[in-house]
Amino acid sequence: MQEKALNSPGFEIDPDLVITLTHGDPIMFEPFWKEEGHNATVTISGWEKMSYYACDPDDICWFLEPDFANEVLRLHRIVNNAATNGCHIIPGAGSTQLIHATLHALASIEARRHPVNVVSAAPYYSMYSDINSLKSALYHWAGDAATFKGDDNFIEIVCSPNNPDGMIRHAVLSNNAGRRVHDMAYYWPHYTPMRGPADHDIMLFTMSKATGHAGTRIGWALVKDTDVAREMVNYITLNTNGVSRDSQVRAARILKVISDGYEFPNSNGAGQFFHIGRHLLADRWRRLRQAMEVLGKFSLPRFSTEFCEFFKEHAQTYPGFAWLRSEDESINDCGDFFKSINVQIRNGRLFGAGPNYVRISLMGSDAYFDGFIKRITSVG
Amino acid sequence: MQEKALNSPGFEIDPDLVITLTHGDPIMFEPFWKEEGHNATVTISGWEKMSYYACDPDDICWFLEPDFANEVLRLHRIVNNAATNGCHIIPGAGSTQLIHATLHALASIEARRHPVNVVSAAPYYSMYSDINSLKSALYHWAGDAATFKGDDNFIEIVCSPNNPDGMIRHAVLSNNAGRRVHDMAYYWPHYTPMRGPADHDIMLFTMSKATGHAGTRIGWALVKDTDVAREMVNYITLNTNGVSRDSQVRAARILKVISDGYEFPNSNGAGQFFHIGRHLLADRWRRLRQAMEVLGKFSLPRFSTEFCEFFKEHAQTYPGFAWLRSEDESINDCGDFFKSINVQIRNGRLFGAGPNYVRISLMGSDAYFDGFIKRITSVG
Repeated sequence: MQEKALNSPGFEIDPDLVITLTHGDPIMFEPFWKEEGHNATVTISGWEKMSYYACDPDDICWFLEPDFANEVLRLHRIVNNAATNGCHIIPGAGSTQLIHATLHALASIEARRHPVNVVSAAPYYSMYSDINSLKSALYHWAGDAATFKGDDNFIEIVCSPNNPDGMIRHAVLSNNAGRRVHDMAYYWPHYTPMRGPADHDIMLFTMSKATGHAGTRIGWALVKDTDVAREMVNYITLNTNGVSRDSQVRAARILKVISDGYEFPNSNGAGQFFHIGRHLLADRWRRLRQAMEVLGKFSLPRFSTEFCEFFKEHAQTYPGFAWLRSEDESINDCGDFFKSINVQIRNGRLFGAGPNYVRISLMGSDAYFDGFIKRITSVG
Repeated sequence: MQEKALNSPGFEIDPDLVITLTHGDPIMFEPFWKEEGHNATVTISGWEKMSYYACDPDDICWFLEPDFANEVLRLHRIVNNAATNGCHIIPGAGSTQLIHATLHALASIEARRHPVNVVSAAPYYSMYSDINSLKSALYHWAGDAATFKGDDNFIEIVCSPNNPDGMIRHAVLSNNAGRRVHDMAYYWPHYTPMRGPADHDIMLFTMSKATGHAGTRIGWALVKDTDVAREMVNYITLNTNGVSRDSQVRAARILKVISDGYEFPNSNGAGQFFHIGRHLLADRWRRLRQAMEVLGKFSLPRFSTEFCEFFKEHAQTYPGFAWLRSEDESINDCGDFFKSINVQIRNGRLFGAGPNYVRISLMGSDAYFDGFIKRITSVG
């Protein structure tokens, strides 16, 4: 099933079709870019960007496109969600590659016993536990940070707002004892109220969640320590010998359109991505909460209203995922229930929680989301 | 020093400037794309290619752009340098990521002792030995295949034509005893006569050497075994969660322009990339051999003329690198000599050879190559 059909207005899916809500594929933002994003078109001539080097070969990060770096800094300044002063910017093939680069760097630069234990408080992003499949001799996944009993030979990943449950997170293990990576993929105003600039040693962001452009495979790390930055660049050099310059050019253009929408607003407010993104997510959450109330089998997280320094008003939290807990004793495994209505979800067990939890993506196409709400409502 | 300045006609470099001939940055093909490549321009709208998925999510390689796959198959058909029948096509972030994906797959799918020994006959591409820095628990670099004394727990990388010396290579270790990866980056008509389609289990190609587009970070693997293909895709999924769709779109367009140049030729022969590429390389090799003869300190490899099935005539070999051997007893370390004339090269030791060898790139900018020839000539 192609994304295009699924996002066409009025397109309805077959009742027998499996609805896939497993991945955070951010298709919901496609209509914004279709309607408001004509300035986001990028054109690259055949002779441009041919060299491996995106800047001075002697720069620490020789594969960083200067325009991309500038637009990253500009958007952070406008949104004020990250303290960028004195940070190295390192692009990566999505935050996925950046997580590997970070773990590689932190496990390499100090004299540590290998493998270093990588932990994150449950429920944690299921991808973190996948690092074991890559079989690094330097680090391995060691599970829930809250129950970690090892010594100081660890790295804690702090995802905030957290995937899967949308909660604001702080590290649970003592700082002196290990290193931390802050996965900030969802710290943007459409998902959560802005509480001022985050200011951590290593912060990871990604286009896929910031703007909806998953296919570009572009993320970026903000890194304070030069040795860590150097070792992350070393990883990316060895792993992929740089990061697609074409995608960096495109990412720069897309970030620019978002920033322009706020720095040079139209009188009608068109083209303001975070406003429209929040509106879309708010609508989905409203319909989800309504449908779940009718169904009466699952509870959803509750978030308190907070003052958002970006929207300059009290604002709700609208995560890109819904983290459902079974409240029906007849449902032992939520996965079975969703299978029975032909909806693919991700089981709570993958996130270090029980099978009484599931994660569903709210970022997919209109057709999938509408179909999901219809099915839930018809069962309830 | 920016690539643009270095490739401007008439631009001359300062006599004190260090000339960098270490990397295979394929800047020499930029003028072709500037002059002949107006059809190679690619335009991507803001709303296109947003999804992670480039094709059906249930396809083995869910991140393969269909247009890219089609243009890869088309160019292989036109050049007839690889048997693609029944092969899976797997894109990667350059052949760099594909080498890791291949080693990961081959070391994973069979019950092997870990780490598996990775070998290649000396002189071998220096990057192969770099795999140890990534510290995989599955495989490690074990050096020269010709002197490998271990049991059958190995993978042999066969680079043909070989980097650094341009020679046509065959595996040196027995096939039953291990698995092979064929790095075919230079098996294109501008570098070497085409001897018919290569037909190996795993063959790696890359845009950077085929067309000169290193900055796209796009390569492709042709893989016969479905289990190996599946495990390579698994590696890329875990490592970077797919491969830039923007760069695949651009790569498809660039390959198309090359194929169009041969399938729909102009009456004046313009736009035929391999003809023009061969002409450029032939000219550099002629000037290099001349200058080295004047200098009288180094010898260059000699290649016999072969019938090229692509050009339909007897043709010379013009590798992208020159592999120089010192013939002057007063030069113990070639690196010192080139340092004395402010030329950065890659020492033979990195390729498993002695310091009496060096590799110099012939694919760089006109300014660097011209400057290099001038310096060599003034010393000789």
